Amino acid sequence: MSADGKISSIEHKQIRISGQEDLARVDALRSDSDAVMVGVGTVLADDPGLRVKSDMLQKLRLERGKTENPLRVVADSMARTPPNAKVLGPGCIIAVSQSAPSDRVMGLSSRCKLVRAGSSRVDLYNLMSILYEMGVRRLMVEGGAALNWSLIQSGLVDEIYVYIGGLIIGGAGSPTLVDGSGFIGDFPQLNLIAVKPLDDGVLLKWSVIH
Amino acid sequence: MSADGKISSIEHKQIRISGQEDLARVDALRSDSDAVMVGVGTVLADDPGLRVKSDMLQKLRLERGKTENPLRVVADSMARTPPNAKVLGPGCIIAVSQSAPSDRVMGLSSRCKLVRAGSSRVDLYNLMSILYEMGVRRLMVEGGAALNWSLIQSGLVDEIYVYIGGLIIGGAGSPTLVDGSGFIGDFPQLNLIAVKPLDDGVLLKWSVIH
Repeated sequence: MSADGKISSIEHKQIRISGQEDLARVDALRSDSDAVMVGVGTVLADDPGLRVKSDMLQKLRLERGKTENPLRVVADSMARTPPNAKVLGPGCIIAVSQSAPSDRVMGLSSRCKLVRAGSSRVDLYNLMSILYEMGVRRLMVEGGAALNWSLIQSGLVDEIYVYIGGLIIGGAGSPTLVDGSGFIGDFPQLNLIAVKPLDDGVLLKWSVIH
Repeated sequence: MSADGKISSIEHKQIRISGQEDLARVDALRSDSDAVMVGVGTVLADDPGLRVKSDMLQKLRLERGKTENPLRVVADSMARTPPNAKVLGPGCIIAVSQSAPSDRVMGLSSRCKLVRAGSSRVDLYNLMSILYEMGVRRLMVEGGAALNWSLIQSGLVDEIYVYIGGLIIGGAGSPTLVDGSGFIGDFPQLNLIAVKPLDDGVLLKWSVIH
């Protein structure tokens, strides 16, 4: 996020906040995860591939008997993932709710594994159980602000890693690290477990106190 | 701010984000400043006194030939500062615009020095000149989100000190460190000049690259 807590501008455009060191850190974290998850808003705004970028790290995964890339999961209650999204393909899981229009679900079904959890919105507890049964023990979430909120509000987050870059984005309407409706009391408390200068900013690692 | 960049909850209620060490840091910073400034939104939400809390630091100021407290400045275009606000009294300056209703200006005039700058909103460049002529060389701004935005957007900020506390506040509508309309390009760039763990969080010091 920026120094003022934003992950994007008011136009929801992707902004380069970090540099090479941080991108390599994120790639290594992906490579060490069993699955990587984003919300559909992030798919629509940024169209991320969510695959491991480093050939070496992909090779290491293969040597360890894993797939080249961790599973790629999209929380997408209404099946709004575009049929040409980069996240699709082998190893992709789209989690939809029972309310997702069947034509859109059908359209996606040839390019990913579809799982249903929840009636009108994806039931995240249920989704975690499904992922656990698929062997996922370490899930890395790459945002955005709405999914971060839903997961934190549901008490499903163990650690939060935040890279803070040297820029100001501003904007009362700009997406922040955690949006949603917000806590009005009983704010989730965090323990600071690491502080590491990186590129021109700093990486903070927090653990959530459950 | 919280770990997710918020300075208050969606209800705009003051939330304890830092602890004793950070409060002492802020008090020392106040004591080392020639003036302390907030926006009227902060006066209405929190009613801060803006005075130096430590008797020792007040004594030190007196020994150095200064007043007990730095000047207290409120950027208040429409003179909305309540007549019983804690910030009022000797050493208080309310900066209003030409559009401020004269009855409210009159009501405040016995309890503070009033300066006019700008037609419908306080002209911050003009205000800085006025404060400079009053001897202010180091101005500390304690928020809120709207004043922070106006000052950064005007290129009037040299350094940004942010304490990041170990909690999540969340909320798309919660005040963040810098609100306003937001930058859509040419984001102000910052240099990280210090990182210091403090209480249960971390203090980041940035300088603005002009």
